[in-house]
Amino acid sequence: MTRIVDLPTPALIVDRQKFDANVATMAAVRPGLTLRPHVKAHKSTALAAQLAAVGHTAFTCATPREIIGMVQAGLGSDLLLANETVDAQRLRAMAALQGAARVTVAIDSETTATLAAECGIKDVLIDVNVGLPRCGVAPERAAALASFAVSLGLNVRGVMGYEGHLMAVADRDEQRNKVRAAMELLVQCFDDVRGQCGDDCTIISAGGTGTFNLYDPSDPVLARVNEVQAGSYALMDSHYGALDLPFEQALYVVGTVISASDGWAVIDVGLKSLGMDHGNPTIDGASVWFCSDEHITFSMKDGRPLPSIGNRVIVQPAHVDPTIALHEVIHVVDQIPMIGVLSSGTDTSETVAGGKVIDVWPVNLRHW
Amino acid sequence: MTRIVDLPTPALIVDRQKFDANVATMAAVRPGLTLRPHVKAHKSTALAAQLAAVGHTAFTCATPREIIGMVQAGLGSDLLLANETVDAQRLRAMAALQGAARVTVAIDSETTATLAAECGIKDVLIDVNVGLPRCGVAPERAAALASFAVSLGLNVRGVMGYEGHLMAVADRDEQRNKVRAAMELLVQCFDDVRGQCGDDCTIISAGGTGTFNLYDPSDPVLARVNEVQAGSYALMDSHYGALDLPFEQALYVVGTVISASDGWAVIDVGLKSLGMDHGNPTIDGASVWFCSDEHITFSMKDGRPLPSIGNRVIVQPAHVDPTIALHEVIHVVDQIPMIGVLSSGTDTSETVAGGKVIDVWPVNLRHW
Repeated sequence: MTRIVDLPTPALIVDRQKFDANVATMAAVRPGLTLRPHVKAHKSTALAAQLAAVGHTAFTCATPREIIGMVQAGLGSDLLLANETVDAQRLRAMAALQGAARVTVAIDSETTATLAAECGIKDVLIDVNVGLPRCGVAPERAAALASFAVSLGLNVRGVMGYEGHLMAVADRDEQRNKVRAAMELLVQCFDDVRGQCGDDCTIISAGGTGTFNLYDPSDPVLARVNEVQAGSYALMDSHYGALDLPFEQALYVVGTVISASDGWAVIDVGLKSLGMDHGNPTIDGASVWFCSDEHITFSMKDGRPLPSIGNRVIVQPAHVDPTIALHEVIHVVDQIPMIGVLSSGTDTSETVAGGKVIDVWPVNLRHW
Repeated sequence: MTRIVDLPTPALIVDRQKFDANVATMAAVRPGLTLRPHVKAHKSTALAAQLAAVGHTAFTCATPREIIGMVQAGLGSDLLLANETVDAQRLRAMAALQGAARVTVAIDSETTATLAAECGIKDVLIDVNVGLPRCGVAPERAAALASFAVSLGLNVRGVMGYEGHLMAVADRDEQRNKVRAAMELLVQCFDDVRGQCGDDCTIISAGGTGTFNLYDPSDPVLARVNEVQAGSYALMDSHYGALDLPFEQALYVVGTVISASDGWAVIDVGLKSLGMDHGNPTIDGASVWFCSDEHITFSMKDGRPLPSIGNRVIVQPAHVDPTIALHEVIHVVDQIPMIGVLSSGTDTSETVAGGKVIDVWPVNLRHW
């Protein structure tokens, strides 16, 4: 039996109980195909299979490699590449999968439409800019783009619009109003696009973890959003954790104390095992001084004793997605008994009571 | 022939001319074994082999996986693990290499010394805290630790002290004075340690790219530092680039414009292909608005035209080490013709004049 304290560090661990609770909470609000979980959050077909098992069998992907790996893992029944690509080789590789899988590619320009068609892609979604200055056609040009795509022989399945700029609005009423306005745009685009396309044009895809429960089924506009592209909800992070969402942090990085001085301790978790774009990680009960490539230097709060060399410390990353992208595997633990410093013993051979490792999910969809 | 514009993106590219110039500049100041290049900067045995070819055949490593991979690549003549580890399995794996290679492990406590000895490690270096609050024994305890290590049968090769807190001091005179004070401590530790050890105790190892030329050979203290552990110098980044160092940025990430709107463009380089701990990357001639997982949104400065979909854009990462750790390979280009937006053409099939890809260096020492 492997336990947390037996793992070589740094190591990603996920709390199976919290993961299951997060998945169940989401599935209650967005069951089955009303959620199109985003694979980019975890880049693991083993984790994706857990979501498929509760009914979410259509997935959102960020990269061609995610699409191809999902098909290879038998999870290709309905995959959306929610990003544009102009890489002909990768478009052709995805097109070649269309016998065994359904692959839909986002387009937001005549160029991306033309390349998709030239490379043999059949299904596309019109990506609409609903306010985030990133990809997406301007709403007033969505119908013309759909018409152009149809003229190339592409099957337009609907529209998507990612209101990413609204994921972290702290005031819930303000967020609701802004999301509604964005979705009003998107739904109007859908109606415009639908006029140019066939009966297979049915998808209105949007959202993420921060907005998953704002598509009020009693609201005539919001009820029409028929897919939510949330991904982070299953594992969560301290950034999303600051919002009032019914999901709990389930993913951590475990490290080992390798050095301890009079005023601080050092673990073998550093910025090469942590996504750092949302800032430093946190350690329960401790003050993080700084992160180096392979280290975190920290001290304890409130007069708690410093841990000893060999103790395991559980670190909370600030941003889960890029943290996972730095690791080869996620270790699934039945339950993480506590976070922060696991033991203050002094013997490196000490066996700290801790969770059992019950599964390993390879992070097998990394890179592009 | 593959050129920059033919690469699937995002892709790491290194300018061979600048790389060679950086390597030559360093070798002129710290030739042969007076430099112990840090492998953590690039995690590539192919790149390390380039440094060995100009005479730097002793290397610094940050992780056991780096040590093991360097030995497997035939670069194991003198490897230093400059971090502490209490992982018995990894210590034993490194000890098992000692017939084919020389492996020296940093220790800074009785615990790390004991574990090294128990796992069969022969050679150690006393890691001394010279002011950076991270690893390293307190200077006044260095000799006692060396004596303890010798009592366990370990061969103490000398001392190391990383003055990492002084790498980025902007005022050169202030930096020089502080480095000298730190090295005075380290040299004193060496003399104390040497008194406890045999004739093989010769190493005084310190420094990095930010201090590589401060070990003045005419200064009785600084001249005694006989190894510098610089790594970033060969590739550089915008953080180090802000200092007055004679090295040029040689490593970039190339992306492709996948979407362009009225006021901005988007490339397929995001925070999963960039180390973000030093902040956002830069694009020559452009203003970076923000980074998403797979995207950078940017606009052009000074009325320059926005690039078109399909254009390649060369991005300057803020921190090289963690950027490389996100990639599988580094593409070596004979010369990068220009940075920023490679072309403002509108045809995605346009062939932009650009550097030739002349080699590929796998980033084969990632993870731990």
